[in-house]
Amino acid sequence: MSQLGNLLESLSTGKIELIDLTTSLSAQTPVLRLPEPFVNLIDFSLEQVSAYNAPGPLWKHHNIHTGEHIGTHLDAPIHWFTGKDGRDVAQIPPERLLGPAVVLDVSSESAQNPNFLLEIAHVTAWEEAHGPIPQNAWLLLRTGWDRFAQDQEQFLNADQNGPHTPGFSAECAQWLAEHTPISGVGVETVGIDAGSAGGMEPPFPAHHYLLGHDKYGVTSLQNLDKLPPTGAVIVVAPLPIVGGTGSPSRVFALVAHND
Amino acid sequence: MSQLGNLLESLSTGKIELIDLTTSLSAQTPVLRLPEPFVNLIDFSLEQVSAYNAPGPLWKHHNIHTGEHIGTHLDAPIHWFTGKDGRDVAQIPPERLLGPAVVLDVSSESAQNPNFLLEIAHVTAWEEAHGPIPQNAWLLLRTGWDRFAQDQEQFLNADQNGPHTPGFSAECAQWLAEHTPISGVGVETVGIDAGSAGGMEPPFPAHHYLLGHDKYGVTSLQNLDKLPPTGAVIVVAPLPIVGGTGSPSRVFALVAHND
Ligand SMILES: [Mn+2]
Ligand SMILES: [Mn+2]
Repeated sequence: MSQLGNLLESLSTGKIELIDLTTSLSAQTPVLRLPEPFVNLIDFSLEQVSAYNAPGPLWKHHNIHTGEHIGTHLDAPIHWFTGKDGRDVAQIPPERLLGPAVVLDVSSESAQNPNFLLEIAHVTAWEEAHGPIPQNAWLLLRTGWDRFAQDQEQFLNADQNGPHTPGFSAECAQWLAEHTPISGVGVETVGIDAGSAGGMEPPFPAHHYLLGHDKYGVTSLQNLDKLPPTGAVIVVAPLPIVGGTGSPSRVFALVAHND
Repeated sequence: MSQLGNLLESLSTGKIELIDLTTSLSAQTPVLRLPEPFVNLIDFSLEQVSAYNAPGPLWKHHNIHTGEHIGTHLDAPIHWFTGKDGRDVAQIPPERLLGPAVVLDVSSESAQNPNFLLEIAHVTAWEEAHGPIPQNAWLLLRTGWDRFAQDQEQFLNADQNGPHTPGFSAECAQWLAEHTPISGVGVETVGIDAGSAGGMEPPFPAHHYLLGHDKYGVTSLQNLDKLPPTGAVIVVAPLPIVGGTGSPSRVFALVAHND
Protein backbone atom coordinates (compact mmCIF):
# COMPACT_ATOMS: atom_id res chain seq x y z
CA MET A 1 0.00 0.00 0.00
CA SER A 2 1.19 3.57 -0.62
CA GLN A 3 2.45 5.74 2.23
CA LEU A 4 -0.68 7.92 2.14
CA GLY A 5 -2.84 4.80 1.92
CA ASN A 6 -1.11 3.49 5.02
CA LEU A 7 -1.76 6.77 6.82
CA LEU A 8 -5.49 6.55 6.07
CA GLU A 9 -5.52 2.90 7.12
CA SER A 10 -3.81 3.75 10.43
CA LEU A 11 -6.30 6.56 11.04
CA SER A 12 -9.23 4.22 10.44
CA THR A 13 -7.87 1.55 12.81
CA GLY A 14 -6.87 4.06 15.50
CA LYS A 15 -3.16 3.30 15.19
CA ILE A 16 -2.83 7.00 14.39
CA GLU A 17 -5.22 9.45 16.04
CA LEU A 18 -6.28 12.87 14.76
CA ILE A 19 -6.49 15.24 17.74
CA ASP A 20 -8.13 18.65 17.63
CA LEU A 21 -5.94 21.25 19.37
CA THR A 22 -8.40 24.09 18.72
CA THR A 23 -10.55 25.95 21.24
CA SER A 24 -14.11 26.78 20.21
CA LEU A 25 -15.05 30.23 18.89
CA SER A 26 -18.03 32.11 20.34
CA ALA A 27 -18.94 35.35 22.08
CA GLN A 28 -17.56 33.69 25.26
CA THR A 29 -14.08 33.06 23.85
CA PRO A 30 -11.56 34.84 26.11
CA VAL A 31 -9.86 37.84 24.50
CA LEU A 32 -6.69 39.76 25.33
CA ARG A 33 -7.39 43.04 27.15
CA LEU A 34 -4.73 45.66 26.50
CA PRO A 35 -4.50 48.49 29.05
CA GLU A 36 -5.33 52.08 28.02
CA PRO A 37 -4.43 53.91 25.79
CA PHE A 38 -4.13 50.86 23.51
CA VAL A 39 -7.18 49.93 21.43
CA ASN A 40 -8.46 46.37 21.74
CA LEU A 41 -9.91 44.21 19.03
CA ILE A 42 -13.60 43.34 19.15
CA ASP A 43 -14.92 40.13 20.68
CA PHE A 44 -16.18 37.33 18.45
CA SER A 45 -19.83 37.54 17.43
CA LEU A 46 -22.21 35.98 14.94
CA GLU A 47 -24.87 38.23 13.36
CA GLN A 48 -27.85 36.26 12.12
CA VAL A 49 -28.92 37.20 8.59
CA SER A 50 -31.45 34.45 7.92
CA ALA A 51 -32.73 31.39 9.78
CA TYR A 52 -35.08 29.42 7.48
CA ASN A 53 -37.25 32.54 7.29
CA ALA A 54 -38.14 35.43 4.96
CA PRO A 55 -34.56 36.68 4.30
CA GLY A 56 -33.60 33.07 3.42
CA PRO A 57 -36.44 30.53 3.60
CA LEU A 58 -34.34 27.42 2.98
CA TRP A 59 -31.17 28.34 4.83
CA LYS A 60 -29.58 29.86 7.90
CA HIS A 61 -26.44 32.00 7.68
CA HIS A 62 -24.55 34.60 9.66
CA ASN A 63 -22.05 37.38 9.36
CA ILE A 64 -18.93 37.07 11.51
CA HIS A 65 -17.40 39.99 13.42
CA THR A 66 -14.16 39.23 15.21
CA GLY A 67 -10.62 40.29 15.89
CA GLU A 68 -7.84 38.58 13.95
CA HIS A 69 -6.28 37.59 17.28
CA ILE A 70 -8.82 35.50 19.15
CA GLY A 71 -9.15 31.92 20.34
CA THR A 72 -6.74 29.51 18.73
CA HIS A 73 -5.01 31.87 16.30
CA LEU A 74 -1.75 32.44 14.48
CA ASP A 75 0.50 35.49 14.76
CA ALA A 76 2.15 36.35 11.43
CA PRO A 77 5.41 38.36 11.19
CA ILE A 78 3.69 41.65 10.22
CA HIS A 79 1.76 41.55 13.52
CA TRP A 80 4.90 42.98 15.21
CA PHE A 81 7.02 46.00 14.25
CA THR A 82 10.10 43.76 14.15
CA GLY A 83 8.46 41.75 11.34
CA LYS A 84 6.70 44.60 9.55
CA ASP A 85 8.55 43.96 6.27
CA GLY A 86 7.92 40.23 6.60
CA ARG A 87 5.08 37.91 5.72
CA ASP A 88 1.38 38.42 6.24
CA VAL A 89 -0.66 35.41 7.24
CA ALA A 90 -1.50 34.56 3.60
CA GLN A 91 2.18 34.54 2.63
CA ILE A 92 3.31 31.87 5.10
CA PRO A 93 4.51 28.89 3.04
CA PRO A 94 2.26 25.84 3.60
CA GLU A 95 5.32 23.69 4.37
CA ARG A 96 5.88 25.81 7.49
CA LEU A 97 2.36 24.91 8.67
CA LEU A 98 2.78 21.11 8.80
CA GLY A 99 5.67 19.67 10.76
CA PRO A 100 6.93 17.83 13.81
CA ALA A 101 5.44 18.80 17.17
CA VAL A 102 7.73 18.91 20.21
CA VAL A 103 6.02 19.32 23.57
CA LEU A 104 7.70 20.82 26.64
CA ASP A 105 5.59 20.02 29.67
CA VAL A 106 5.91 22.70 32.34
CA SER A 107 2.41 22.21 33.73
CA SER A 108 3.55 21.44 37.27
CA GLU A 109 5.90 24.45 37.34
CA SER A 110 3.06 26.65 35.98
CA ALA A 111 0.59 25.33 38.55
CA GLN A 112 2.94 26.40 41.32
CA ASN A 113 3.92 29.69 39.69
CA PRO A 114 1.57 31.32 37.15
CA ASN A 115 4.44 33.63 36.14
CA PHE A 116 6.66 30.68 35.19
CA LEU A 117 9.05 31.47 32.34
CA LEU A 118 10.69 28.92 30.08
CA GLU A 119 14.47 29.38 29.98
CA ILE A 120 17.07 28.17 27.48
CA ALA A 121 18.16 25.53 30.01
CA HIS A 122 14.69 23.93 29.93
CA VAL A 123 14.94 23.52 26.16
CA THR A 124 18.48 22.14 26.20
CA ALA A 125 17.44 19.70 28.95
CA TRP A 126 14.53 18.59 26.76
CA GLU A 127 16.95 18.11 23.85
CA GLU A 128 19.25 15.98 26.00
CA ALA A 129 16.31 13.72 26.80
CA HIS A 130 14.59 13.65 23.40
CA GLY A 131 17.16 14.69 20.78
CA PRO A 132 17.62 17.95 18.89
CA ILE A 133 14.57 20.00 17.95
CA PRO A 134 13.87 18.97 14.35
CA GLN A 135 13.76 21.29 11.34
CA ASN A 136 10.40 22.98 10.87
CA ALA A 137 9.16 21.90 14.31
CA TRP A 138 6.49 23.62 16.33
CA LEU A 139 7.61 23.96 19.94
CA LEU A 140 4.50 23.53 22.08
CA LEU A 141 4.50 24.81 25.65
CA ARG A 142 2.26 22.62 27.81
CA THR A 143 1.34 24.69 30.88
CA GLY A 144 -2.09 23.37 31.85
CA TRP A 145 -3.54 26.80 31.08
CA ASP A 146 -6.01 25.26 28.63
CA ARG A 147 -8.23 24.34 31.62
CA PHE A 148 -9.15 28.04 31.94
CA ALA A 149 -10.02 28.55 28.26
CA GLN A 150 -13.75 28.95 28.89
CA ASP A 151 -13.32 31.63 31.58
CA GLN A 152 -12.04 35.08 30.64
CA GLU A 153 -11.03 36.03 34.19
CA GLN A 154 -9.11 32.88 35.07
CA PHE A 155 -7.59 32.70 31.58
CA LEU A 156 -6.12 36.22 31.79
CA ASN A 157 -5.44 35.94 35.58
CA ALA A 158 -4.88 39.70 35.99
CA ASP A 159 -4.66 41.80 39.15
CA GLN A 160 -3.52 45.37 39.87
CA ASN A 161 -0.03 44.33 38.74
CA GLY A 162 -1.21 43.03 35.38
CA PRO A 163 -1.76 39.53 34.03
CA HIS A 164 -0.03 36.45 35.44
CA THR A 165 0.32 33.66 32.91
CA PRO A 166 3.31 31.48 31.93
CA GLY A 167 5.49 32.03 28.86
CA PHE A 168 9.06 32.50 27.65
CA SER A 169 11.91 34.53 29.14
CA ALA A 170 13.42 37.20 26.86
CA GLU A 171 16.66 35.20 26.59
CA CYS A 172 14.80 32.03 25.68
CA ALA A 173 12.62 33.79 23.09
CA GLN A 174 15.69 35.31 21.44
CA TRP A 175 17.51 31.97 21.44
CA LEU A 176 14.53 30.09 19.99
CA ALA A 177 14.21 32.71 17.26
CA GLU A 178 17.89 32.91 16.36
CA HIS A 179 19.35 29.49 17.15
CA THR A 180 16.70 26.83 16.56
CA PRO A 181 15.15 25.58 13.29
CA ILE A 182 11.54 25.87 14.54
CA SER A 183 8.65 27.08 12.42
CA GLY A 184 7.11 28.57 15.51
CA VAL A 185 5.82 28.12 19.02
CA GLY A 186 2.43 27.11 20.33
CA VAL A 187 0.99 27.98 23.72
CA GLU A 188 -2.19 27.36 25.74
CA THR A 189 -2.46 30.99 26.90
CA VAL A 190 -4.15 34.01 25.28
CA GLY A 191 -0.95 35.19 23.56
CA ILE A 192 2.51 33.83 22.82
CA ASP A 193 4.08 36.08 25.47
CA ALA A 194 3.88 35.61 29.23
CA GLY A 195 1.44 37.76 31.17
CA SER A 196 4.40 39.70 32.62
CA ALA A 197 6.02 40.30 29.20
CA GLY A 198 5.00 43.97 28.90
CA GLY A 199 7.61 44.77 31.54
CA MET A 200 10.41 42.74 29.99
CA GLU A 201 13.32 44.05 27.96
CA PRO A 202 12.45 44.16 25.11
CA PRO A 203 8.71 44.29 25.82
CA PHE A 204 6.84 41.18 24.61
CA PRO A 205 10.03 39.31 23.67
CA ALA A 206 8.31 36.28 22.10
CA HIS A 207 6.52 38.59 19.67
CA HIS A 208 9.66 40.72 19.26
CA TYR A 209 12.12 37.98 18.42
CA LEU A 210 10.03 35.22 16.87
CA LEU A 211 7.96 37.38 14.50
CA GLY A 212 11.09 39.39 13.67
CA HIS A 213 12.79 36.16 12.56
CA ASP A 214 10.00 34.80 10.35
CA LYS A 215 8.86 32.40 13.03
CA TYR A 216 5.22 32.16 13.96
CA GLY A 217 3.07 31.67 17.02
CA VAL A 218 -0.21 29.90 17.77
CA THR A 219 -2.17 30.46 20.95
CA SER A 220 -5.03 29.05 23.04
CA LEU A 221 -4.21 25.45 22.17
CA GLN A 222 -6.14 22.59 23.73
CA ASN A 223 -5.30 18.93 24.32
CA LEU A 224 -1.51 19.27 24.40
CA ASP A 225 -1.63 16.72 27.26
CA LYS A 226 -2.58 14.12 24.61
CA LEU A 227 0.67 14.63 22.69
CA PRO A 228 3.96 12.83 23.35
CA PRO A 229 7.13 14.93 23.90
CA THR A 230 8.20 14.09 20.35
CA GLY A 231 6.82 12.09 17.40
CA ALA A 232 3.53 13.86 16.75
CA VAL A 233 2.79 15.89 13.61
CA ILE A 234 0.99 19.24 13.77
CA VAL A 235 -1.11 20.95 11.08
CA VAL A 236 -1.67 24.67 11.67
CA ALA A 237 -4.42 26.04 9.41
CA PRO A 238 -4.91 29.82 9.47
CA LEU A 239 -7.17 31.54 6.93
CA PRO A 240 -5.14 33.04 4.05
CA ILE A 241 -6.18 36.65 4.73
CA VAL A 242 -4.38 39.03 2.35
CA GLY A 243 -2.63 41.61 4.54
CA GLY A 244 -3.73 39.80 7.67
CA THR A 245 -1.51 40.11 10.76
CA GLY A 246 -2.93 36.84 12.06
CA SER A 247 -5.97 34.64 11.84
CA PRO A 248 -8.17 32.39 13.91
CA SER A 249 -6.88 28.93 12.98
CA ARG A 250 -7.81 25.30 13.14
CA VAL A 251 -4.98 23.21 14.54
CA PHE A 252 -4.81 19.41 14.38
CA ALA A 253 -2.22 16.88 15.50
CA LEU A 254 -1.55 13.34 14.33
CA VAL A 255 -0.42 11.06 17.16
CA ALA A 256 0.73 7.45 16.80
CA HIS A 257 -0.37 4.85 19.34
CA ASN A 258 1.79 1.80 19.90
CA ASP A 259 -0.98 -0.57 20.90
CA MET B 1 11.36 4.97 11.33
CA SER B 2 7.80 5.50 12.55
CA GLN B 3 4.95 6.03 10.11
CA LEU B 4 4.64 9.72 11.03
CA GLY B 5 8.43 10.08 10.86
CA ASN B 6 8.30 8.64 7.34
CA LEU B 7 5.58 11.11 6.40
CA LEU B 8 7.70 14.06 7.55
CA GLU B 9 10.73 12.61 5.74
CA SER B 10 8.74 12.25 2.50
CA LEU B 11 7.48 15.82 2.84
CA SER B 12 11.03 17.11 3.28
CA THR B 13 12.34 15.22 0.23
CA GLY B 14 9.36 16.10 -1.97
CA LYS B 15 8.19 12.50 -2.29
CA ILE B 16 4.97 13.78 -0.75
CA GLU B 17 3.84 17.33 -1.52
CA LEU B 18 1.60 19.56 0.59
CA ILE B 19 -0.71 21.47 -1.75
CA ASP B 20 -2.82 24.44 -0.70
CA LEU B 21 -6.35 24.15 -2.11
CA THR B 22 -7.48 27.45 -0.55
CA THR B 23 -8.31 30.71 -2.34
CA SER B 24 -7.12 33.93 -0.70
CA LEU B 25 -9.45 36.06 1.43
CA SER B 26 -9.75 39.81 0.81
CA ALA B 27 -12.31 42.48 -0.08
CA GLN B 28 -11.97 41.20 -3.67
CA THR B 29 -12.97 37.61 -2.88
CA PRO B 30 -16.06 36.79 -4.99
CA VAL B 31 -19.27 36.38 -3.01
CA LEU B 32 -22.60 34.74 -3.81
CA ARG B 33 -25.31 37.25 -4.78
CA LEU B 34 -28.80 36.05 -3.92
CA PRO B 35 -31.68 37.73 -5.79
CA GLU B 36 -34.20 39.88 -3.92
CA PRO B 37 -35.94 39.48 -1.47
CA PHE B 38 -33.19 37.32 0.05
CA VAL B 39 -30.60 39.06 2.22
CA ASN B 40 -26.94 38.57 1.31
CA LEU B 41 -24.01 38.21 3.66
CA ILE B 42 -21.45 41.00 3.82
CA ASP B 43 -18.23 40.95 1.82
CA PHE B 44 -14.92 40.24 3.53
CA SER B 45 -13.14 43.25 5.02
CA LEU B 46 -10.30 44.04 7.40
CA GLU B 47 -10.71 47.01 9.74
CA GLN B 48 -7.37 48.39 10.91
CA VAL B 49 -7.21 48.98 14.67
CA SER B 50 -3.50 49.73 15.03
CA ALA B 51 -0.48 49.80 12.75
CA TYR B 52 2.66 50.40 14.84
CA ASN B 53 1.09 53.68 15.97
CA ALA B 54 -0.65 55.29 18.96
CA PRO B 55 -3.43 52.66 19.41
CA GLY B 56 -0.69 49.98 19.35
CA PRO B 57 2.88 51.26 19.01
CA LEU B 58 4.58 47.87 18.67
CA TRP B 59 1.98 45.98 16.68
CA LYS B 60 -0.52 45.98 13.84
CA HIS B 61 -3.87 44.23 14.11
CA HIS B 62 -7.31 44.27 12.53
CA ASN B 63 -10.89 43.35 13.09
CA ILE B 64 -12.45 41.01 10.54
CA HIS B 65 -15.96 41.46 9.14
CA THR B 66 -17.16 38.71 6.83
CA GLY B 67 -19.92 36.32 5.94
CA GLU B 68 -19.59 32.72 7.11
CA HIS B 69 -19.94 31.63 3.47
CA ILE B 70 -17.10 33.24 1.53
CA GLY B 71 -14.04 32.09 -0.34
CA THR B 72 -12.97 28.56 0.41
CA HIS B 73 -15.54 27.67 3.02
CA LEU B 74 -17.42 24.75 4.51
CA ASP B 75 -21.19 24.31 4.61
CA ALA B 76 -22.33 22.56 7.81
CA PRO B 77 -25.64 20.66 8.06
CA ILE B 78 -27.48 23.45 9.92
CA HIS B 79 -26.87 25.77 6.95
CA TRP B 80 -29.87 24.11 5.25
CA PHE B 81 -33.41 23.49 6.54
CA THR B 82 -33.00 19.79 5.79
CA GLY B 83 -30.09 19.66 8.27
CA LYS B 84 -31.44 22.11 10.82
CA ASP B 85 -31.40 19.51 13.63
CA GLY B 86 -27.92 18.39 12.60
CA ARG B 87 -24.41 19.54 13.31
CA ASP B 88 -23.08 23.07 13.39
CA VAL B 89 -19.59 23.63 12.02
CA ALA B 90 -17.98 23.19 15.47
CA GLN B 91 -19.69 19.80 15.95
CA ILE B 92 -18.27 18.12 12.85
CA PRO B 93 -16.05 15.26 14.05
CA PRO B 94 -12.39 15.88 13.13
CA GLU B 95 -12.16 12.42 11.52
CA ARG B 96 -14.66 13.59 8.89
CA LEU B 97 -12.28 16.44 7.99
CA LEU B 98 -9.25 14.34 6.99
CA GLY B 99 -9.71 11.61 4.42
CA PRO B 100 -9.11 10.33 0.92
CA ALA B 101 -9.65 12.78 -1.94
CA VAL B 102 -11.25 11.53 -5.14
CA VAL B 103 -11.18 13.90 -8.09
CA LEU B 104 -13.70 13.82 -10.94
CA ASP B 105 -12.34 15.92 -13.79
CA VAL B 106 -15.14 17.46 -15.85
CA SER B 107 -13.15 20.53 -16.85
CA SER B 108 -13.50 19.96 -20.61
CA GLU B 109 -17.26 19.36 -20.31
CA SER B 110 -17.57 22.52 -18.15
CA ALA B 111 -15.51 24.58 -20.61
CA GLN B 112 -17.97 23.66 -23.36
CA ASN B 113 -21.07 24.01 -21.19
CA PRO B 114 -20.98 26.23 -18.10
CA ASN B 115 -24.26 24.64 -16.97
CA PHE B 116 -22.71 21.16 -16.97
CA LEU B 117 -24.24 18.85 -14.35
CA LEU B 118 -22.57 15.78 -12.92
CA GLU B 119 -24.83 12.73 -13.19
CA ILE B 120 -24.77 9.40 -11.35
CA ALA B 121 -23.37 7.77 -14.51
CA HIS B 122 -20.27 9.99 -14.35
CA VAL B 123 -19.56 8.77 -10.81
CA THR B 124 -20.15 5.10 -11.60
CA ALA B 125 -17.88 5.43 -14.67
CA TRP B 126 -15.21 6.96 -12.41
CA GLU B 127 -15.63 4.03 -10.00
CA GLU B 128 -15.23 1.52 -12.83
CA ALA B 129 -11.91 3.16 -13.72
CA HIS B 130 -10.57 3.88 -10.22
CA GLY B 131 -12.42 1.60 -7.79
CA PRO B 132 -15.21 2.30 -5.32
CA ILE B 133 -15.33 5.68 -3.56
CA PRO B 134 -13.64 5.02 -0.21
CA GLN B 135 -15.19 5.55 3.20
CA ASN B 136 -14.90 9.14 4.44
CA ALA B 137 -13.79 10.43 1.04
CA TRP B 138 -14.19 13.96 -0.20
CA LEU B 139 -15.51 13.92 -3.79
CA LEU B 140 -13.86 16.85 -5.55
CA LEU B 141 -15.40 18.22 -8.73
CA ARG B 142 -12.67 19.57 -11.03
CA THR B 143 -14.39 21.99 -13.44
CA GLY B 144 -11.65 24.53 -14.22
CA TRP B 145 -13.78 27.20 -12.55
CA ASP B 146 -10.91 28.08 -10.21
CA ARG B 147 -9.40 30.20 -13.02
CA PHE B 148 -12.17 32.79 -12.42
CA ALA B 149 -11.71 32.96 -8.64
CA GLN B 150 -10.26 36.50 -8.69
CA ASP B 151 -13.12 37.97 -10.79
CA GLN B 152 -16.60 38.26 -9.28
CA GLU B 153 -18.36 38.62 -12.64
CA GLN B 154 -16.73 35.69 -14.39
CA PHE B 155 -16.89 33.55 -11.26
CA LEU B 156 -20.68 33.98 -10.89
CA ASN B 157 -21.26 34.07 -14.68
CA ALA B 158 -24.79 35.45 -14.36
CA ASP B 159 -27.12 36.89 -16.99
CA GLN B 160 -30.84 37.75 -17.03
CA ASN B 161 -31.55 34.03 -16.62
CA GLY B 162 -29.41 33.72 -13.51
CA PRO B 163 -25.96 32.25 -12.89
CA HIS B 164 -24.36 29.64 -15.15
CA THR B 165 -21.83 27.49 -13.31
CA PRO B 166 -21.33 23.70 -13.23
CA GLY B 167 -22.50 21.42 -10.43
CA PHE B 168 -24.52 18.33 -9.58
CA SER B 169 -27.88 17.15 -10.96
CA ALA B 170 -30.61 16.61 -8.34
CA GLU B 171 -30.50 12.84 -8.93
CA CYS B 172 -26.73 12.77 -8.51
CA ALA B 173 -26.81 14.90 -5.34
CA GLN B 174 -29.45 12.62 -3.81
CA TRP B 175 -27.49 9.49 -4.76
CA LEU B 176 -24.21 10.87 -3.38
CA ALA B 177 -25.95 11.77 -0.12
CA GLU B 178 -27.86 8.51 0.33
CA HIS B 179 -25.75 5.83 -1.35
CA THR B 180 -22.07 6.74 -1.02
CA PRO B 181 -19.80 6.79 2.06
CA ILE B 182 -18.42 10.29 1.37
CA SER B 183 -17.75 12.88 4.05
CA GLY B 184 -18.64 15.58 1.57
CA VAL B 185 -18.07 17.21 -1.77
CA GLY B 186 -15.67 19.93 -2.84
CA VAL B 187 -16.14 22.31 -5.75
CA GLU B 188 -14.27 25.17 -7.43
CA THR B 189 -17.39 27.34 -7.74
CA VAL B 190 -18.93 29.86 -5.32
CA GLY B 191 -21.32 27.29 -3.82
CA ILE B 192 -21.79 23.53 -3.80
CA ASP B 193 -24.83 23.81 -6.08
CA ALA B 194 -24.81 24.55 -9.80
CA GLY B 195 -25.70 28.08 -10.92
CA SER B 196 -29.01 26.76 -12.25
CA ALA B 197 -29.90 24.91 -9.02
CA GLY B 198 -32.49 27.43 -7.80
CA GLY B 199 -34.82 26.14 -10.53
CA MET B 200 -34.27 22.44 -9.83
CA GLU B 201 -36.62 20.12 -7.93
CA PRO B 202 -35.88 20.30 -5.03
CA PRO B 203 -34.21 23.74 -5.22
CA PHE B 204 -30.48 23.62 -4.49
CA PRO B 205 -30.34 19.81 -4.39
CA ALA B 206 -26.68 19.55 -3.31
CA HIS B 207 -27.46 21.63 -0.22
CA HIS B 208 -30.81 19.85 0.24
CA TYR B 209 -29.58 16.27 0.13
CA LEU B 210 -25.96 16.43 1.32
CA LEU B 211 -26.49 18.72 4.33
CA GLY B 212 -29.69 16.81 5.15
CA HIS B 213 -27.63 13.59 5.35
CA ASP B 214 -24.77 14.89 7.55
CA LYS B 215 -22.50 15.30 4.56
CA TYR B 216 -20.59 18.52 4.08
CA GLY B 217 -19.46 20.80 1.27
CA VAL B 218 -16.42 22.94 0.58
CA THR B 219 -16.32 25.57 -2.13
CA SER B 220 -13.95 27.81 -4.11
CA LEU B 221 -11.16 25.25 -4.13
CA GLN B 222 -7.93 25.92 -6.03
CA ASN B 223 -5.29 23.58 -7.48
CA LEU B 224 -7.49 20.52 -7.97
CA ASP B 225 -5.60 20.04 -11.26
CA LYS B 226 -2.57 19.08 -9.15
CA LEU B 227 -4.39 16.12 -7.58
CA PRO B 228 -4.56 12.59 -9.01
CA PRO B 229 -8.00 10.99 -9.49
CA THR B 230 -7.36 8.90 -6.38
CA GLY B 231 -4.60 8.51 -3.78
CA ALA B 232 -4.39 12.04 -2.36
CA VAL B 233 -5.37 12.92 1.21
CA ILE B 234 -7.37 16.07 2.01
CA VAL B 235 -7.45 18.09 5.24
CA VAL B 236 -10.44 20.45 5.55
CA ALA B 237 -9.96 22.95 8.38
CA PRO B 238 -12.97 25.16 9.20
CA LEU B 239 -13.00 27.34 12.30
CA PRO B 240 -14.93 25.69 15.16
CA ILE B 241 -17.60 28.40 15.42
CA VAL B 242 -20.23 27.45 18.01
CA GLY B 243 -23.59 27.64 16.22
CA GLY B 244 -21.89 28.42 12.93
CA THR B 245 -23.63 27.32 9.73
CA GLY B 246 -20.29 27.28 7.94
CA SER B 247 -16.86 28.83 8.06
CA PRO B 248 -14.10 30.11 5.86
CA SER B 249 -11.68 27.18 5.85
CA ARG B 250 -8.09 26.32 5.05
CA VAL B 251 -7.89 23.21 2.86
CA PHE B 252 -4.70 21.27 2.19
CA ALA B 253 -3.95 18.10 0.23
CA LEU B 254 -1.10 15.62 0.50
CA VAL B 255 -0.07 14.19 -2.86
CA ALA B 256 2.50 11.44 -3.42
CA HIS B 257 4.95 11.71 -6.32
CA ASN B 258 6.43 8.54 -7.77
CA ASP B 259 9.72 10.03 -8.90
MN1 LIG C 1 -2.00 37.24 18.37
MN1 LIG D 1 -21.88 28.04 1.78
